[in-house]
Amino acid sequence: MKKDIGPATAMYPSLTTIVGTVVDGRPNFLAVAHVGIMNHGQPQYISVGINKGHYSPRGIHEHGQFSVNIPSEDLMVETDYVGIVTGKNTDKSQVFKLYAGELPHAPLIKQCPVAMECRLHQVVDFEKHEVFIGEIVKTWADESVLTDKGHVDPAKVRPLLFDMGTVSYYGIGPALGGCWNVGKKLKKG
Amino acid sequence: MKKDIGPATAMYPSLTTIVGTVVDGRPNFLAVAHVGIMNHGQPQYISVGINKGHYSPRGIHEHGQFSVNIPSEDLMVETDYVGIVTGKNTDKSQVFKLYAGELPHAPLIKQCPVAMECRLHQVVDFEKHEVFIGEIVKTWADESVLTDKGHVDPAKVRPLLFDMGTVSYYGIGPALGGCWNVGKKLKKG
Repeated sequence: MKKDIGPATAMYPSLTTIVGTVVDGRPNFLAVAHVGIMNHGQPQYISVGINKGHYSPRGIHEHGQFSVNIPSEDLMVETDYVGIVTGKNTDKSQVFKLYAGELPHAPLIKQCPVAMECRLHQVVDFEKHEVFIGEIVKTWADESVLTDKGHVDPAKVRPLLFDMGTVSYYGIGPALGGCWNVGKKLKKG
Repeated sequence: MKKDIGPATAMYPSLTTIVGTVVDGRPNFLAVAHVGIMNHGQPQYISVGINKGHYSPRGIHEHGQFSVNIPSEDLMVETDYVGIVTGKNTDKSQVFKLYAGELPHAPLIKQCPVAMECRLHQVVDFEKHEVFIGEIVKTWADESVLTDKGHVDPAKVRPLLFDMGTVSYYGIGPALGGCWNVGKKLKKG
């Protein structure tokens, strides 16, 4: 029996990220889980959706650059913290250790095993939110979270997943099967 | 030590969905994990990014409607299957049991514990992909996956997460802590 639960977002859990910007000359960070993957290929585009009331959008509009850092479970408290307090009245530039990449206005977080530097490609405007579509310029990763083939291994990153309904963070579970593979058994002929 | 791994997408794992459309008068389904949450509020918008070579976009363009169904781990094989074979030469209308919602061109999958009916709001065009931004018109859920408060519970849905690097599906792990809560301990004063 299916129940009508209204026009609720059921796209959770989603990946928790920390968006890095430079606002008023200072690095600023915001936890953002309303994110998306736009395409597959090069250039590669991703999206981050941010409420217009936040401080971070100023930096993205001013510099056309931002970073998307992927925290592991170990960084849950700090990640949550930068989603609670606003850069408008709190200096968040000292919460993390930073490192320099290619883009001067896309601050990168050392404690995050993976991070992407993005150049702003397009803004999709909604009433209360802006969706910033960024082109990934460069991705950095700890060697310890890479597979033998050089890909990021989610089991090693242990990312934080976000759910709005239960207002909880979740870890990821075990690998269940191969994509574009396990379904082959249903193919006919 | 951070390693430059090129402009790789590190936004995985992402939620695996099955996008339902009506193409050439027949329900069609495609596994899509390049998805996103655009905003928070009403109207609520989500995105699905689909390669232009696929069959499904025709139905979305023609009818301005599509469904986004959330499969559980139990449906991994069928989900993978509808990502492997194309509606251009395979009838996928019989893979799942369907039910009717409000929109006639957004077919809903009974075996999926949660599903959203979407009206097309905007198309963001990339070279090889289109990102379909849909407004959620109605969301359906099995009562068995809801919390006492009527929210979708990820631990009960047991969604499939997708990772491109390791080409694997993952389950979700345990709840780790409360959002907008665990970070409070870092607040000063």
